[in-house]
Parts: sequence; C-alpha cells; structure tokens
Amino acid sequence: MDEKKNDGKHHDVNRRDFIKMGAAAGLGAAVAGIALQGCEQGSTTRSLSTTPRIMKADPIDPVRIGFVGVGSRGSNHVRNILRLDGIEIKAFCDIVPEKVERVQQWVTDAGFPKPTAYTRGENDYVRMCETEDLDLVIHATPWKYHVPGCVASMQNGKHAATEVPAALTIDGCWELVENAEKYNKHCVMLENCNYGRAELMNLNMVRHGVYGELIHGQGGYCHDLRNMKLGGGEVEKWRVEYSIKDNGNLYPTHGLGPIANCMNINRGDRFNYLVSMSGIARGLHDYAVEKLGPDSKFANTKFALGDVNVSLIKTMKGLTITLYHVTDLARPYSRINMIEGVKAISKSYPDLIYIEGKSPFDQWEPLDNYSSEYEHPLWRRIGELAKGSGHGGMDFILDYRLIQCLRKGTPTDMDVYDAAALSVIIEMSEISVANKCQAVDFPDFTRGMWETREPLGIVEA
Amino acid sequence: MDEKKNDGKHHDVNRRDFIKMGAAAGLGAAVAGIALQGCEQGSTTRSLSTTPRIMKADPIDPVRIGFVGVGSRGSNHVRNILRLDGIEIKAFCDIVPEKVERVQQWVTDAGFPKPTAYTRGENDYVRMCETEDLDLVIHATPWKYHVPGCVASMQNGKHAATEVPAALTIDGCWELVENAEKYNKHCVMLENCNYGRAELMNLNMVRHGVYGELIHGQGGYCHDLRNMKLGGGEVEKWRVEYSIKDNGNLYPTHGLGPIANCMNINRGDRFNYLVSMSGIARGLHDYAVEKLGPDSKFANTKFALGDVNVSLIKTMKGLTITLYHVTDLARPYSRINMIEGVKAISKSYPDLIYIEGKSPFDQWEPLDNYSSEYEHPLWRRIGELAKGSGHGGMDFILDYRLIQCLRKGTPTDMDVYDAAALSVIIEMSEISVANKCQAVDFPDFTRGMWETREPLGIVEA
Repeated sequence: MDEKKNDGKHHDVNRRDFIKMGAAAGLGAAVAGIALQGCEQGSTTRSLSTTPRIMKADPIDPVRIGFVGVGSRGSNHVRNILRLDGIEIKAFCDIVPEKVERVQQWVTDAGFPKPTAYTRGENDYVRMCETEDLDLVIHATPWKYHVPGCVASMQNGKHAATEVPAALTIDGCWELVENAEKYNKHCVMLENCNYGRAELMNLNMVRHGVYGELIHGQGGYCHDLRNMKLGGGEVEKWRVEYSIKDNGNLYPTHGLGPIANCMNINRGDRFNYLVSMSGIARGLHDYAVEKLGPDSKFANTKFALGDVNVSLIKTMKGLTITLYHVTDLARPYSRINMIEGVKAISKSYPDLIYIEGKSPFDQWEPLDNYSSEYEHPLWRRIGELAKGSGHGGMDFILDYRLIQCLRKGTPTDMDVYDAAALSVIIEMSEISVANKCQAVDFPDFTRGMWETREPLGIVEA
Repeated sequence: MDEKKNDGKHHDVNRRDFIKMGAAAGLGAAVAGIALQGCEQGSTTRSLSTTPRIMKADPIDPVRIGFVGVGSRGSNHVRNILRLDGIEIKAFCDIVPEKVERVQQWVTDAGFPKPTAYTRGENDYVRMCETEDLDLVIHATPWKYHVPGCVASMQNGKHAATEVPAALTIDGCWELVENAEKYNKHCVMLENCNYGRAELMNLNMVRHGVYGELIHGQGGYCHDLRNMKLGGGEVEKWRVEYSIKDNGNLYPTHGLGPIANCMNINRGDRFNYLVSMSGIARGLHDYAVEKLGPDSKFANTKFALGDVNVSLIKTMKGLTITLYHVTDLARPYSRINMIEGVKAISKSYPDLIYIEGKSPFDQWEPLDNYSSEYEHPLWRRIGELAKGSGHGGMDFILDYRLIQCLRKGTPTDMDVYDAAALSVIIEMSEISVANKCQAVDFPDFTRGMWETREPLGIVEA
C-alpha cells in the first residue's frame, strides 16, 4: 500500500498520466495547452465531500504516541520527544526489527514501559493504527508511505504527523486534506526548517515590520546527495528511484516552508501558479562512473532528474519565490533562505541581513547583530535546550511545538493545508518541466479559507 | 530618431503590440498560446537579405574614433582610450555642449588635436557619421538611441560599439544583425562585466576544466537605482520612463554576459527559450513618497516594472540560467555571478568557490585562493594598469580589448550576434511576463552558425 498505488482508487489518475505522456511524446504546444487546462481544471475545481476547517482538538495529556519508521529521522524524533513532559511512547513500527529494539531500549532506559513492536512488514502500520490507543502517529518512512500512513492514522482516530514531503502527488495532497477534514484530525508535516534559528528570527522580524512589505523570496534544497543515493544499501535505495523516473523539484518543502510562513501562505495569501525548469542530468552518472566503476548498474542507468531544477512561484498577491532543487552536484549545502522586502533583505550560509537606514550602505551585516532585539521567543526560551538535538536544534523545537500544541489544544503551527500547499509542488513542477515550463495553477486546498484566516503569529514557547 | 520609432519602418510592429495588448486585456490562455506561436514564428523564421558571417576587418592603425554621448559612461571610455596606443579621437557628439567641451579639453591636454564637436541636438550623430572619417563610433547614449546610432555608424562605413543594452526590442536586435552583415562592420556591445576579474578568472577555469561540464548559472542586476531613477534631473529622467511602461528584465546583459561566455553561447550552444516572472511594484512608489513627498509626481505614478523580475533560460544543450533584475529595492549590489558545473561551483559578493576534492568538504573558499594558478592573462598582464579606471578595472580592459582587436584585425571578443542574444531578453521577458510566464523562443540570430563556431578562447593581452 503506497501513495502511487492508492491514487487509482480515488482519483482520475489517467488524466495525470496523459499530461506526462503527452509531453514525453513531444506533441508540442497543442498538447501542452491541453495539459495545463486539464491540470487547472482537475486540481482547482475538485469537489470534496468535506468542508475546510480550522483544525483544532481538545487538550490532550499525556499525548500517547506511536512511531512508523524509526531509522535516522524517526529515531531522532523519539530522542527529542523522550525529553518532553506529558508524553507516552506506546508503539513502534518498522520493517527492521533491530531498529525497533534500539528505540524500545531508549524508552525503557528512560524509565517508561516498553512500547509495543510492529515489525510484520511494510503495511504493519495499519495494524498498529487499528490496534493501539494513540493520540498521535509520527511517520518517518520512505516518501511513498506518507499519504497512506497518515490516512490510516486519521481513519483510526489518530492525529498524524509526517516527515517531508507529506505527499508526492496532487491527488495525494487532496487525500490528506479530505481525510483531515472528514475525521477532524491534525495532519502535520514535520518541516523542521520552519524552526531554524535564522528562519524564526526572520519570521519575527517580518512580523515586527523590519522588512516592510515582502516582495520576493528564494529558497532551495541544495544538498549533495550523490553518496546517499548511490552508496546506500538495500534499505536506503528507495530514494534514488525518484531520480531515475522523475524530473522536477522532488524536495521542495525545506526551502519553501519558512518563506511561506513569512508570506502568510494559506493565511492571507496563497500560491497562485508556478513554472519549473530542469537542465541536464550529469551528476549521478559521473559519480557512479567514478565511485562504482563504468560497468556498475548506476553508471549505466538513465537518470530523469535534472541536476538543477528551478521553479518560480507567484502568489495571489503578486509576491514571487525562486525555489531550487540541486542534489546531484558537488557543492556546499544551502537552503538559501532569502527574504526580500521593501526595507530589508536577508539570506543564509552565512546568515546575513541588510536593513535600509540601519546597515552600512550597500553592505551585508551578520544577522546576529540583531539577535538581541529579534531573537525568536522559541529560541530565546529553549534554544540552549535544543542545541545538539539535530540540525542545530530546530528538530527539537519542531517536536516541542507539536507536542505543546496537542497538549494545549491549539491549532498546530502547520496544518494539513500547509502540508498540501508545500508538497504539491513536486508533481506540479514535474508537469511544468515536461511541458516546456508551462504555468501550472496551484489547487486551493483551503477552498477560499486562505482569504480570511489569520496569519501565523509569533509563536511563543 | 530612436529605436522604437524605427521599428515601424522595417518590421511588423503590430504583431508585437498585439501580443502585449492581448495579455493586458486578460484574454487568458487562448490568447497566450497565439502570442507564443506568433512570437516564435516572427522571431525565429525572419528572413534577412543578408548572410551570417564571422565579423573580421583588416588591421587598423591608428583607430580613428568618434563618440556619441560623453556623459558619465561615455567620458569614462574617453579617459580609458586616451591611455591606449594607436588611437585618434576625432569627434564628440552630445546634446549638452559643456560635456563635449570637457572631453575636448582632456584630449588637447593629452597633446592631441581638438576633436570636432557635434552638438546640434539628439540626431546630430547622423551628421557626425556622415561627415567624419572614422573607423569606430562609440555610443554611450540613452538606450533608445543605441540601435539607430549603431545603424547610422555602420551604414556610413564605421564600426559600431555601444553601451548596454545594444537594443530594446526583438526587431532592434535583428536590425543590428542585418546591418552588421550587410556592411561587414563590427557591432560590439560594450559589456564591461565580461572583463571583471572574477568573471575572467572563472572563464579561464572553465576552459581549464576546473568546473567539469557546466550545468547551471545564476546572474543578475541587483542594484538599488531608486535615487538614480527618481532623483535625477531633466537629462537623466529617461531611465525611469522604462520603469513606468515596461515590465520584464530591462537590463539583462551585465549578469548574463560572463555566463554566456562560459557556456559558449553562439559558439557551440545558444539560448533556446526563456520564461520570466515579475512580482509587485512597490519600491519606487514608497521611495517617492518618502523622499519626494506624497504629493510628488512620482508618488502618484503607476510603475509597471515589478520590483523583482526573474527569468529562467534554457540553452539548446540543456544548460539553465536564472537571471534577476532588481533595481527598485533597498539592497546591496550584486550580479550574483554563479557558475555551477559537475566538479565545482563559484559565486560572487564576495568571490567564493568550491572545487570538489580541493576545497574543504562542503565549504566555500575565497576564489583568490586560486588566483596564482588561474588569474586570467588579461588581469595578470594589465590588471595593475586597469585599477582605478572604473568598476574595479574592467572598464579599461574592455576598451583595451576593443582597440586591440581592431588594431590586430581579429574578430572582437563579442560580436553583433552576442549583442543581439543578450539584449533580446528585454522584450522576450516582457512578452513572457505579460503572458503568465509562457515560454518564448529565442531567435537564432546566427541562423545555424552557432553550431560550428569555435568557443571564445582564453583571450590574451
């Protein structure tokens, strides 16, 4: 049971196949036009049997939690959550029993009862969701399991949280929205980068008017994953499969999440349309030849994914975003993190800012120069606690906020509409790339609610 | 006599007007499709009565030069060229007599005869081109005079050189190409950024294989021009007019020229198509309100130009380029200068590079770390001489190379096809912006010659 297989059950998968095949067959402008119209129609006018809503739940204490996937990312969540008050870790699911045993040990070492193990294969999370009394299920599995995992959680009365991306397809995004609305359950995408120190400080400064009106942002996922894709064992090899068959932005949420928050996406504005361009694919091939040998499988694999994918996004209010996906080239890591307003501009790697009238004319200065004034309350309060928890501390703050919201009964910082708006870029970018960068309209997952929802505030610790 | 007025005489201006009006009227996807097809047809299949050719001329010594426009940029060229051997400055044309008198004085102070003055209004350059015995006319005038100025030069047997951009319209670009071919004259766009130290060092390193195969580039013109646009006097006010009426990338060549050289544009590859997106326009309005007052003319002017314009360009060989135009926001200057290959990546502001296997893993290092090995020969030879000549020295090297090529009788580094390929982005981006980012095909100004032309070499001093 995975996302792609699920599509056919609920939605018009043929339409989407036609779009991609049409372009691949080189039918040119006429087909591209149809594709765009088909996409606009299919994605923006979809009628659900449910109604958009502000996702809220009664306060929960303690929060009883099950985990699906306890490898690298999942076990990091376990470690973080074990440090929080008001939680009970009840169950672990993974296809590798040893991984479950490892985190079971962590829990018992911390003085808690041993969580139940679910290790009967890739669909055993369904049994866990059906069997266990849980408030929250956290999914840290290969991408294709995120939608069916979250849906199984919500259908069985559990809130769902998932690693990024929440979904791989337009229909998968709708499926999350539909189920969250139907069962009135949270479906949170665990976008840790939303909680980075610079990112939250920027949000704080945006809210305090330092940037003036926002105009533009630039984000990305520029991360040399050649070794992860080609050097992994059997368990890790799922990731490279997408580089073989898909061409677009496969991983849009890290770079885009923090910008979307600053721009009030789904809360006063929303993404309107995107165009996306991919270039040639050389990085993985060359790496395979060099590291694995010219006769290796990957040296003789044709990779679909362009080494550099760039998407341009326009919001309903006319703001623009440039978004990169670069995972197959030798280069330093970057999510770019650029926010540009009428009065100020900032970017990361390193964290720099220019504020008109404050910074020396025409010169960047360290963002840190403004931390005494604008450090985000979350970092001020628990920054020290978070350090060393993964990715510089943002992973801990992410989990902290998730549990805090559930315990308080407030809406989560990010909800199912955000998960969908950020994740939907994957398939939209693929459609645009396959159709000579044609504009593809974003579905309005909120069905109009974006216009009246309050912006995410400066979240307090 | 300016470029826009000239259009109607030679070309189908109505077609282009239709494209823009169609989009402005909000006729949607159907019209956009027509517009694209119209554009493709009109621009790529244009039949000229001339034949593409490698522009060469016999060695010239001394090079007799006339200048049209001797304001800030023009007088800088005068100053640089006065320092070179083998030149004679014969004539100056400007609408402001005092500017001509100033540079006349410079020439006589240097011990040369006094050049003739042409100051009878905005079209007096025609009389100069008809009257004077010149080898080269250098144009540093407001943008709209570049095409008619260069054409008048070539029609009267002179080589032409022009400040950037060489032309503002697709038809203007064709007009330059047609006249250069017809009269076998150079038509050089004076893209000074092609001669920047980091840019030439990058070119040198590309030629030496440091980057491996190139994949992607990023360039731009990010320059806070609010004061130049709104604070100028009567003479300077021409520049703001484009911000009032045009929306696209008005100034593409500085950021794109060096990348185009690295990517062998027109010499083994060429630009295939672009998409372009502009966001909201706030910067000039807000600046006018603050600096000129809420009742000032510009505070009540509607500006068409989005504060941030982004274009994505794809080459025939599948390389991609992101190109920015940001002139109305408070921010530090940048042309970005990013070149990304399979083995290395570099960027500017400051100049940094990462070379796989040489740089510390995942860390940028100063480009200067490689200058002992890869400093470009031009900078090695005349870098010291160039310093203090304008824009860090690249302006002097630009003029040095122009005169050197003419004296030697070699093709110029940049020719009319390059001038056209870089300048044409202005109108193409406007068309794409007006049609929801639709892809616009580049004209092949070389009509196939790009496939067999040799790449620009590592130019020697």
